[in-house]
Amino acid sequence: MRNEKLISALGNCINHCNYCADACLDEENVKMMKDCIRTDRVCAEVCSSLNQILATGYQNVQGLIDYCIEVCTACADECSKHEHDHCQACAKACRECVEACKAY
Amino acid sequence: MRNEKLISALGNCINHCNYCADACLDEENVKMMKDCIRTDRVCAEVCSSLNQILATGYQNVQGLIDYCIEVCTACADECSKHEHDHCQACAKACRECVEACKAY
Amino acid sequence: MRNEKLISALGNCINHCNYCADACLDEENVKMMKDCIRTDRVCAEVCSSLNQILATGYQNVQGLIDYCIEVCTACADECSKHEHDHCQACAKACRECVEACKAY
Amino acid sequence: MRNEKLISALGNCINHCNYCADACLDEENVKMMKDCIRTDRVCAEVCSSLNQILATGYQNVQGLIDYCIEVCTACADECSKHEHDHCQACAKACRECVEACKAY
Repeated sequence: MRNEKLISALGNCINHCNYCADACLDEENVKMMKDCIRTDRVCAEVCSSLNQILATGYQNVQGLIDYCIEVCTACADECSKHEHDHCQACAKACRECVEACKAY
Repeated sequence: MRNEKLISALGNCINHCNYCADACLDEENVKMMKDCIRTDRVCAEVCSSLNQILATGYQNVQGLIDYCIEVCTACADECSKHEHDHCQACAKACRECVEACKAY
Repeated sequence: MRNEKLISALGNCINHCNYCADACLDEENVKMMKDCIRTDRVCAEVCSSLNQILATGYQNVQGLIDYCIEVCTACADECSKHEHDHCQACAKACRECVEACKAY
Repeated sequence: MRNEKLISALGNCINHCNYCADACLDEENVKMMKDCIRTDRVCAEVCSSLNQILATGYQNVQGLIDYCIEVCTACADECSKHEHDHCQACAKACRECVEACKAY
């Protein structure tokens, strides 16, 4: 499959963002997690679009890759502020996704 | 609801792109419609992401709006080449979406 | 466009669920809103799938319509417990969506 | 992460369906591929919803899993009629997804 490495990094990032956003809701300090939940959601959404578009032959994807790098970086920065395992794992998945986007 | 006008234009564009992509499959000259089907799909996907993100308080959406304008314009250009009603209606919905993005 | 009435009700429900889920994050009592946020997210996701599939000629959608009724009902029940305007408006959109699904 | 095995099977199925739907457009006999393209699209959409919902703590997912089994089975049946590598690979991914849904 074309773009397999980036598609795989995006899939991993989507799963971690969705899981982190939901797990944050069950944390004691949920009020502190609101930016994390919000950014997770946006990041999952953008990665999902890019994931699906990369599976097609559509060529002009650079604008979306640039935006994906911006959102994944913001999500990694936010998640890395929190010590919860799901936040740390999500930050890692977002950073790996940024690398895969840049390598594209 | 915040961003109601743009969200509404995006919703209309998503529906027309999904409908046009599928209706193209049933056209006699389906081989000629392949760029239309492909661009419709990409356009629906990007509009859907932007639609969902605009409903949130996430602020840094300009990169996605710029990309959405690019994709909607490409989709309008492609659809307007074909005389099928669904293509013409889709081209119109895409152009209205571009206007709403620019007015944002 | 085929299925226009249901597609429109789904679009409205998606927008309200996404908006309500995000607005709940900014409420003072966010901890009390976690089930609302979670159900809103699931409801938006299911409605979005059904919305996109109804635009196609795919015929066997009853299973997804039944599930959509189940999720929209759960979301309406949860949202109607809360007095915030976005919750009340979302409950209304969910109930209208249930009616449109049943009328399909 | 919860539900990791099924989430992984769904991710793989989404990627194959999106790739197969698009690759079919470039086939010589695209007219013969229209049911394949249509079913691929529906299958990717349903798997994507289930994928995202399984990452949450929402409990009542059985209705969507049952529908996902129905759609993945239909997509596997359709794809397996065609000899293109992308169709055969997609049929396999769909069948693995059915197994993972049933094992849930």
